[in-house]
Amino acid sequence: MKELKGRKLILFFGIPFGIGCYFLGNPIFAIITTLIMLGGIDEFYTLSEKKGGHPNRIFGFIITLLIAVSYSGVYVHHQITIMGLICFSVVSVFFIEIINNKEEPLLNISTTFLGILFVPSMLGTIIYIRQMDHIYNSNIVLTLFLSVWLCDIAAFFFGTKWGKKKILPSISPKKSWVGSVSGFIVAVLVFILSYRLGFLGIRYVLFDAVIFGSIAGIFSQLGDFAESMLKRDAGVKDSGDLLRAHGGILDRFDSLLFSSAMIYIHLLIFID
Amino acid sequence: MKELKGRKLILFFGIPFGIGCYFLGNPIFAIITTLIMLGGIDEFYTLSEKKGGHPNRIFGFIITLLIAVSYSGVYVHHQITIMGLICFSVVSVFFIEIINNKEEPLLNISTTFLGILFVPSMLGTIIYIRQMDHIYNSNIVLTLFLSVWLCDIAAFFFGTKWGKKKILPSISPKKSWVGSVSGFIVAVLVFILSYRLGFLGIRYVLFDAVIFGSIAGIFSQLGDFAESMLKRDAGVKDSGDLLRAHGGILDRFDSLLFSSAMIYIHLLIFID
Repeated sequence: MKELKGRKLILFFGIPFGIGCYFLGNPIFAIITTLIMLGGIDEFYTLSEKKGGHPNRIFGFIITLLIAVSYSGVYVHHQITIMGLICFSVVSVFFIEIINNKEEPLLNISTTFLGILFVPSMLGTIIYIRQMDHIYNSNIVLTLFLSVWLCDIAAFFFGTKWGKKKILPSISPKKSWVGSVSGFIVAVLVFILSYRLGFLGIRYVLFDAVIFGSIAGIFSQLGDFAESMLKRDAGVKDSGDLLRAHGGILDRFDSLLFSSAMIYIHLLIFID
Repeated sequence: MKELKGRKLILFFGIPFGIGCYFLGNPIFAIITTLIMLGGIDEFYTLSEKKGGHPNRIFGFIITLLIAVSYSGVYVHHQITIMGLICFSVVSVFFIEIINNKEEPLLNISTTFLGILFVPSMLGTIIYIRQMDHIYNSNIVLTLFLSVWLCDIAAFFFGTKWGKKKILPSISPKKSWVGSVSGFIVAVLVFILSYRLGFLGIRYVLFDAVIFGSIAGIFSQLGDFAESMLKRDAGVKDSGDLLRAHGGILDRFDSLLFSSAMIYIHLLIFID
């Protein structure tokens, strides 16, 4: 009877309400749909909390608003292929999970997607940057590789020698402020040097080089922290065991994930 | 010393290798980057498995390939804003999680994103469809609302009366084949009727109406299953407790999530 009551509520309240909203025209319809999206994602997060997670509500709400704006503009019609792909992915993964009927569906589905967001969505940006390099005869990717690697090495040596105060010992027990700042400076210097030697071509100015270097210096280290955090959570505290067995790809590329994504964003917004 | 050894390995092997790949030109570089993305997401899934999840590897690999293709084509330059937004979101959520330093970061981050993918990314498509309706003087959204609701009601009544064989009793104990097929037929009939009455305008033919109705009939029920699965996983077996307290938005809109996303995809691919 509970089920029936729910259905009657829809019939006598939901349908007129839905139809009413519909006839109020596009802007009102979009606003009400957005409110429903916000309510829905809020509930989804409550479900996640029941599973012991602490999803970031505020962030989810902000992205919901951005997605609503994006769908509202017919002028963003060109972005539909990616959104179509995302929708298709979500439906497919849920469908497969329903058929498979395994334990822990929430965790299964959410980690499937986080894998896609964390690795290919981020690392794939390097392909785009490489193509921009090709078109504009620059060497951002190559400089980024060197910058990130030398940043890591500098942070390690300076940190080991002079690093006392740790940044976030509970996530990464060895990373010190001295090491991080040294790494940052080296990352910026590598980009400035690359610029001075003409490796960045004629499209970018010194200011761009400083920005690229700063992104490399900050976000490569943030990527390190991100992976340390995931490893700690998975109970893999030393980089040894799990990842070494698999070649340690994430271990090697964690610092590139975030820095290349942020350079990509910088190129999109300020240069292209 | 282990740390130092890892860094020496990068210096003497990784850097020359990376630079080598770089100079092999765009296609080779893109292919190698794609292989690294595949290796990286594979590792990410291994981490998730350590947490008890069973991510869908094959699917992750396929999406990785699609993302690589998407980043490789400069012609898909228009899609960059969405990809830029995705990258920025991932970096931000990880950053906030690192700062917050809470328990269960993997679960926190992955459910944050799944919430975004499951609710606004899917439900937002209705905004787009509504705008197409406005432009082409059709009423797909309105017909979809009615179709999904009547499908649900038909499935409930026919299922209660004649439904013996259940579809997936472990996920949704009440859903029967008879109910589902009845719901499907009603969903299609609603769209055909809407077409005959001229509510779909002149842009769509009868075949489109049948496709829209079939999507509504199949994917609204799949959406129901998806939410039932998540609720079971969260230990909320009856729709009563958790969701009623929150107004039951997901409960009401679960069937719209997938069906509107699939109609959106159909519009993109076959009509626009």
